[in-house]
Amino acid sequence: MQIYTAPTEDFRFLLETLGYEKVHALAPYADYDLETVMSLLAAAGAFCRDVALPLNRKGDQVGLRFDPATGSVTLPEGFRSLYERYVEAGFASLGHDPAFGGGGAPHTVAVLVNEMVTATNKSFSMCPGLSQGLIEALSHHGTDDQRARYLPKLIAGEWTGTMCLTEPQCGTDLGLLTTRAVPDGDRYRLTGTKIWITFGEHDLADNIIHLVLARLPDAPAGIKGISVFAVPKVLPDGARNGISCSGLEHKMGIHASPTCVMTLEDAVGELIGEPHRGMRAMFTMMNVARLNVGLEGVALGDIAYQTAVAFARDRRQGRAPDPDKRERGAAADNILAHPDVRRMLLEIKSTHEAMRALAVWTSLQIDTALHHEDPAARQAAADMAALLTPVVKSYCTERGFLNVSTAMQVCGGSGFTVDWSIEQYLRDLRIAMIYEGTNHIQALDLVGRKLPADGGRGYRDWSARVRSFCEAQGGDAGMAELVGPLLDALATLDGLTTWLGGGTADGETVGAAASAYLNAFALTALAYMWGLQVAEARRRDTPFAAVKVKTARYFVRHVLPEVDALARVVREGKEHIMAVAPDEF
Amino acid sequence: MQIYTAPTEDFRFLLETLGYEKVHALAPYADYDLETVMSLLAAAGAFCRDVALPLNRKGDQVGLRFDPATGSVTLPEGFRSLYERYVEAGFASLGHDPAFGGGGAPHTVAVLVNEMVTATNKSFSMCPGLSQGLIEALSHHGTDDQRARYLPKLIAGEWTGTMCLTEPQCGTDLGLLTTRAVPDGDRYRLTGTKIWITFGEHDLADNIIHLVLARLPDAPAGIKGISVFAVPKVLPDGARNGISCSGLEHKMGIHASPTCVMTLEDAVGELIGEPHRGMRAMFTMMNVARLNVGLEGVALGDIAYQTAVAFARDRRQGRAPDPDKRERGAAADNILAHPDVRRMLLEIKSTHEAMRALAVWTSLQIDTALHHEDPAARQAAADMAALLTPVVKSYCTERGFLNVSTAMQVCGGSGFTVDWSIEQYLRDLRIAMIYEGTNHIQALDLVGRKLPADGGRGYRDWSARVRSFCEAQGGDAGMAELVGPLLDALATLDGLTTWLGGGTADGETVGAAASAYLNAFALTALAYMWGLQVAEARRRDTPFAAVKVKTARYFVRHVLPEVDALARVVREGKEHIMAVAPDEF
Repeated sequence: MQIYTAPTEDFRFLLETLGYEKVHALAPYADYDLETVMSLLAAAGAFCRDVALPLNRKGDQVGLRFDPATGSVTLPEGFRSLYERYVEAGFASLGHDPAFGGGGAPHTVAVLVNEMVTATNKSFSMCPGLSQGLIEALSHHGTDDQRARYLPKLIAGEWTGTMCLTEPQCGTDLGLLTTRAVPDGDRYRLTGTKIWITFGEHDLADNIIHLVLARLPDAPAGIKGISVFAVPKVLPDGARNGISCSGLEHKMGIHASPTCVMTLEDAVGELIGEPHRGMRAMFTMMNVARLNVGLEGVALGDIAYQTAVAFARDRRQGRAPDPDKRERGAAADNILAHPDVRRMLLEIKSTHEAMRALAVWTSLQIDTALHHEDPAARQAAADMAALLTPVVKSYCTERGFLNVSTAMQVCGGSGFTVDWSIEQYLRDLRIAMIYEGTNHIQALDLVGRKLPADGGRGYRDWSARVRSFCEAQGGDAGMAELVGPLLDALATLDGLTTWLGGGTADGETVGAAASAYLNAFALTALAYMWGLQVAEARRRDTPFAAVKVKTARYFVRHVLPEVDALARVVREGKEHIMAVAPDEF
Repeated sequence: MQIYTAPTEDFRFLLETLGYEKVHALAPYADYDLETVMSLLAAAGAFCRDVALPLNRKGDQVGLRFDPATGSVTLPEGFRSLYERYVEAGFASLGHDPAFGGGGAPHTVAVLVNEMVTATNKSFSMCPGLSQGLIEALSHHGTDDQRARYLPKLIAGEWTGTMCLTEPQCGTDLGLLTTRAVPDGDRYRLTGTKIWITFGEHDLADNIIHLVLARLPDAPAGIKGISVFAVPKVLPDGARNGISCSGLEHKMGIHASPTCVMTLEDAVGELIGEPHRGMRAMFTMMNVARLNVGLEGVALGDIAYQTAVAFARDRRQGRAPDPDKRERGAAADNILAHPDVRRMLLEIKSTHEAMRALAVWTSLQIDTALHHEDPAARQAAADMAALLTPVVKSYCTERGFLNVSTAMQVCGGSGFTVDWSIEQYLRDLRIAMIYEGTNHIQALDLVGRKLPADGGRGYRDWSARVRSFCEAQGGDAGMAELVGPLLDALATLDGLTTWLGGGTADGETVGAAASAYLNAFALTALAYMWGLQVAEARRRDTPFAAVKVKTARYFVRHVLPEVDALARVVREGKEHIMAVAPDEF
């Protein structure tokens, strides 16, 4: 059973609630009014359900074929056609610059399409996902000539892209990387080994452009000596370049997504951006990429939830605890009669709808930061996007993983079988907590970099924004049940932020507390998202809006209390963590 | 990399701390003094590391071969020899009655052997695990003649056993089962379909004895009309009986453990125990079986932890946040320098060592309940075992699953590959939250059945026992850091128990709150286990004891605060859960 309905009703509600009309008003987005966006999302949803989803289990079970003799990687039958149809439908180019053939849609819209593609075929989604990152980097850091040569092909989906960062001895710590780039005329020759290269080799497109981190001969040591190069698989003259796949990883999930070891031997590359300043180009790619990875937790949480609901609607087992609710003449009631089944479903629904809202809210900030006419508004939106991106990446993947596991629990033994596919969603999602910067790296980014940036301006603005929302609800007694706990959580978070010196506490304390702090931040942010949604829902008289209010109540009363336990953990600091010596584990 | 060292140092510490000498003093256990037990555990540990573990990945990757024509199931090469060596070493018979060839060891010892077998080859461990359950049921409910015919072969491991409970329409709710048993002379003929039958068919032994739940023609409806039958695969005259495997489930994990659909067509069976009283026999099997399932969370948590520690010791990445702790001349420090890596390892260590302690403590209660000469002591121990068994089953599997996931996180991308095997441990463990009664069924058993039993005697005794331990530490200032939070958690739990009317609240409230209540109970019980361990550790001057104290501190300060969030959730009751109607999900 593979069950999926595009969550377009929720998308529309969120776009209306969170301010899409302001993004539509920005100059480049004139073509994308809400109704246009909704029909685009509906079409994408149908594509995902009808084309991407039917190949998802096949991708998992058939997996990849690697030929060591040629270094070629073959995807399961049907994936090439899926990719062609995806490109033809315009999804590959959707959010990119019309000057190079892109659709010019807001990031927010592209992100929602990504959610659906990921939900229905996560392995496949990673190929265009990596291309998007490369396109971002080239757009910001390439020369006019480079953009002209690369972007049209990449945006059209004729070529795909990769990010070649990790090496066997360096992942989180890129300062350790050793791949060398030696000048050779106006190009460079690169030699080294890269690992974990997603879609580093495949048969979906004719060429692959690798964005490779390497060191020039005169590079300073560490992270400040890294440059970035574009290294094509096939050179402009049609010759194969000296970069090839020398092996595939065997993984718990995403079996149709090749994770390649790439060997570079005198591979021809061209420098992107300035020498030794490669990390800047990487960070450009990372915000959108990290937001998309966060969405993976929402996407797979959603399809798993839909599957669990479908299972629960069909399954009868035991009697309703309340005799008045028992179905007469039936030997057993539907399991939705059992409080714990509802509890599990609400645990998922109340977190994943808020996580989706937070991702949409952050995407709207990114669009605003790019195109608002007022520099102050751009700056404020950029601050918000920078602050919330690590929160979205880490929390949505961690909670999303728990949500998929909870969906499996709803299905009992059936959930553990391949028949209901939830087990694949669980396996496919687990990596999202690790890649694109582990979740703790996100927490360090939040606490150690984003909090202290610009004298703490970002956090102050965010906190003020939440507080002013709460104050604006002051006269509405119906909002009090939500606003009270949200203000409590915010006060707790403000206190923790101060306790951490706004991120300037000593490194061990920051490291010890960062993960718990991020989770407390995330729960507060989710409560804020529920506040925004309930305020809107109370203005509507629809069944959908009524369920939003009920779901928010569950979140506030059953989930939000976790903030207090996290706060106590943050304030414990490093003492009992650093007390255990390395050889005592 | 498959890494495992038998945790015998911890076993010895726990047996000494938790009162093994009192169990050894019980009449039937004279042969099992602590030194004998420790050498037995050491031998079992070596067997697990050298014989069971090398086949674990093969079992996962090769899986099972099912022949639809004959209904035969073939395990991967090497498993038959593993089983023979397991039987020869005496592990199959260890805890069973010497009158029928058993080793006569305390349950506690058998449970610790099971932990190691499960850690190193969970799929394999399930075969003797099911036999143990069948042996329990026959020992308590079979006639002398039945015991004489079945037990020697089962205890010797020549035959194996199954439990055939579930049918397509009934799992949790066994009252719905429809398999029929019709009298035929002094035997019965059974017809029906059973699913999820672990090791229902295999090639490890010559015969399989199925314990089958079925209804007699005159059976009342529902759960009070179920009888139990022994149905052999091969009849005494050598003929194949009318029970056969008609298919295997395809699962996320435990790939070498056959999960069979069993078809019964006029299969010959004999009644075990009284007609219509079959559920009693089932419940006999369930206590030990549930304890062993709980141990699965400890077992796989342990091997995953050991793997993560080995990975962390080897991996260098980034610099220690404290400049004074940086290794001179190295480009990067070992990742154990990072607070979050230690935090993750402590998160595992501080919960799984306490969970193991709780399982050992509960096993000691089972041994005491069986053999103490004082009926009052037997009753008290039986109360404790009944109360804590659902806690062990549910909490250890849920937290154990999180612990394996955390161990994967320590290993980063490597943890997601098959190379480090943690991904297999995660897949293999997930089912433990579902089978042998889902974790919520455990919670309902705890709250709805165990709390109110005998006027609440069990909970009162347990609470008094924890409190009197705390009071006995009164004079020891060094214990205060642990005793204070433990007493706080106990007071919270007492309050929750009262709030739930000692389990007599309305059914929807019990259902809504039971899972959170069980988790709060478990955390309090784990804190008690840390109390017992620290009290003992403070009497010792060894590095091992010093680490116990540090680990306990982490638990009390970083993990135990979760109790308060759970308490708030319990007290929310059912309101916001039942408010969402079935069609609103």
